[in-house]
Amino acid sequence: MTIQNNEHTPRGPSDHSIRDRVVEAATEHFGHFGFEKTTVSDLAKSIGFSKAYIYKFFDSKQAIGEVICTNRLAMIMDIVHSAIADAPSAAEKMRRLFRALTEAGSDLFFHDRKLYDIAAVAARDKWPSAEKHEERLKKLIEQIILEGRQSGEFERKTPLDEAAHAIYLVMRPYISPVQLQYNLETASSAAAILSSLILRSLSP
Amino acid sequence: MTIQNNEHTPRGPSDHSIRDRVVEAATEHFGHFGFEKTTVSDLAKSIGFSKAYIYKFFDSKQAIGEVICTNRLAMIMDIVHSAIADAPSAAEKMRRLFRALTEAGSDLFFHDRKLYDIAAVAARDKWPSAEKHEERLKKLIEQIILEGRQSGEFERKTPLDEAAHAIYLVMRPYISPVQLQYNLETASSAAAILSSLILRSLSP
Repeated sequence: MTIQNNEHTPRGPSDHSIRDRVVEAATEHFGHFGFEKTTVSDLAKSIGFSKAYIYKFFDSKQAIGEVICTNRLAMIMDIVHSAIADAPSAAEKMRRLFRALTEAGSDLFFHDRKLYDIAAVAARDKWPSAEKHEERLKKLIEQIILEGRQSGEFERKTPLDEAAHAIYLVMRPYISPVQLQYNLETASSAAAILSSLILRSLSP
Repeated sequence: MTIQNNEHTPRGPSDHSIRDRVVEAATEHFGHFGFEKTTVSDLAKSIGFSKAYIYKFFDSKQAIGEVICTNRLAMIMDIVHSAIADAPSAAEKMRRLFRALTEAGSDLFFHDRKLYDIAAVAARDKWPSAEKHEERLKKLIEQIILEGRQSGEFERKTPLDEAAHAIYLVMRPYISPVQLQYNLETASSAAAILSSLILRSLSP
């Protein structure tokens, strides 16, 4: 399944704005009726476009879902980056990263439940948007570890990729929308307790 | 909901054996048809008892499910205890504990899928059997930490209950049947990588 991508497809600005309009309407529509229960026909009807016209811009329902996910994940990464930007140490960055991700996930669950459901499908079915997000988070964890190693806050013996992957695994049940729903009650206290454990594991 | 308990209810040996027979038949029956989809009437019919007769011995379907869970969890604890019994160090005990629990959970999932589903209901609805199992595991983690502190393998600064709780939280996605199903693919490699992280967090 290929996903149409604005950046690599030469299209005029009006095509852009039509894509945007479809995505906006779909975000609203899926948000109300749920992603899995809605067809492209339902969506087309609600926007007042023909199904064929929508298929001119998107290969599939998943392709529309991908754009919605990508947008939301970009928003979450923005929140994360501003949460850690002015942290005084790598340790504090790690804590804030975990907290910001848990809060963003809980927020999505409680305030955008239907979009949370799209995110859960994306995670379950390993959509490219979800996989890329995972990669981005692992890279960010690596960066924070490197920073802490350079400043002498963290140990340097463990291979960087192993340390980053292990930390990602500790965080995943509170990040992945498929799993977070089982951990919502304890997510914020768990993020604090597990951050401390992660930092103990990093201490020189 | 109260759960009938052999130890505190004075019953004759024949009552015991009838209880055992119901539990055995129910294990079989739920194992085939699933716990949530089966009623006590279905079960009674399959054993050839009246529904009223079964209710003489068990307050509810959950009460029967509880006995099945308790039996299975006792089996898992036996496996765990023999896995760690001859470990040469506290660190190795921690590794084996994590591995044995992950394997026992995966085994249940792949070979007793319908019983796994009962376990998932028990975990989701916080049945006493599931809660007690959790407590037992936390205690065991505490014991292993204490042992490692006494032998000088582990650090002694972190409050014992915090350290044990954090380690339990790291293991939980691979132990809890509600969550393990999302982590099956990676469970065995995750158990290894996360055991190493846990041990780094415990190092003096």
